[in-house]
Amino acid sequence: MLPAGVTRLIRELTRLPGVGPRTAQRMVFFLLARPPADTRSLAEALVQARERTCECSVCCGLTEGDPCSLCSDPRRDPGSICVVEHPADVVAVERTREFNGRYHVLHGAISPLDGIGPEDIRLAQLLRRVKEGGCREVIVATNPSVEGETTAMYIARLLKPSEVQVTRPASGLPAGSDLEYADQVTLSRALQGRKEI
Amino acid sequence: MLPAGVTRLIRELTRLPGVGPRTAQRMVFFLLARPPADTRSLAEALVQARERTCECSVCCGLTEGDPCSLCSDPRRDPGSICVVEHPADVVAVERTREFNGRYHVLHGAISPLDGIGPEDIRLAQLLRRVKEGGCREVIVATNPSVEGETTAMYIARLLKPSEVQVTRPASGLPAGSDLEYADQVTLSRALQGRKEI
Repeated sequence: MLPAGVTRLIRELTRLPGVGPRTAQRMVFFLLARPPADTRSLAEALVQARERTCECSVCCGLTEGDPCSLCSDPRRDPGSICVVEHPADVVAVERTREFNGRYHVLHGAISPLDGIGPEDIRLAQLLRRVKEGGCREVIVATNPSVEGETTAMYIARLLKPSEVQVTRPASGLPAGSDLEYADQVTLSRALQGRKEI
Repeated sequence: MLPAGVTRLIRELTRLPGVGPRTAQRMVFFLLARPPADTRSLAEALVQARERTCECSVCCGLTEGDPCSLCSDPRRDPGSICVVEHPADVVAVERTREFNGRYHVLHGAISPLDGIGPEDIRLAQLLRRVKEGGCREVIVATNPSVEGETTAMYIARLLKPSEVQVTRPASGLPAGSDLEYADQVTLSRALQGRKEI
């Protein structure tokens, strides 16, 4: 009933995360109702983004030129490395304007249940960077989830011989939240991490 | 912080219905983690679907060849035309296997609040088809919404002089639903349309 091209596009779109057959169909009909130039522009952006983007040879972040703009910025402190799970986390940390060091993107977290071990994420590259010297502190900003905590513990053990300081962002009550609705784990961490005011 | 190509692709994707900046970012990182061939295949499917798909000159449905496979199928009854709002509705009606006639796709419904008048949907084409003769019944399967009902009333008035029978699918309680939770309008329509058993 639907043309073959439309069916194929729906199938291709459902591979994307969070897109089911219904959403894909809505997207296709939306594109078909607009000028062909819109669809061409989207297709071009897809191919260009995929082909021009590579991993920075230093921090493993996403970049079009190697090394990336953050790694080649002389104003950023090379003595402090913030380790994150995903490229999007770099954007989140940068938004705070709290950090002026360099990054290291792991592209995942250790998760034995999903078959992701230490060798599947960019840990060897991190170790190499630290061993090369010039680094005082590694801030392990992996997610406060089971996988993220496991990865943080692993990194702490891995870097122990190198004598750099390994820290982790505080875990506690999120700003603007309600103590009453905080989950048990968050509240116990907040209490354990209490600070004098 | 993110490469220009990635930012551009995120912006392009957020134009799609139901895709916000977060979802778009997730899609992009998903594609970047997969082989470039996957992205190329998606881009090709986009361009092909948009360029090969056109409107059937008879029913205004989506097709790659004109007239479409439904309009050119001699086994389908040309005496019965089912009018729907969108191409996806054809798929829904076909799935029931209840209908063996032809379709007419309006590509919208009359909605004065959105500035969509009778001339903005494919009503002239419907009128022309009916006037050409050979049609006994027009089933107006527009949505049971304000816009769909308005459109159905408009079509009924439009086709009155032509003496074809104009019907509308029954409105009532959906199968498997709970009477207790039925909304007022649905339940009153179900009562008004009650049938002897």
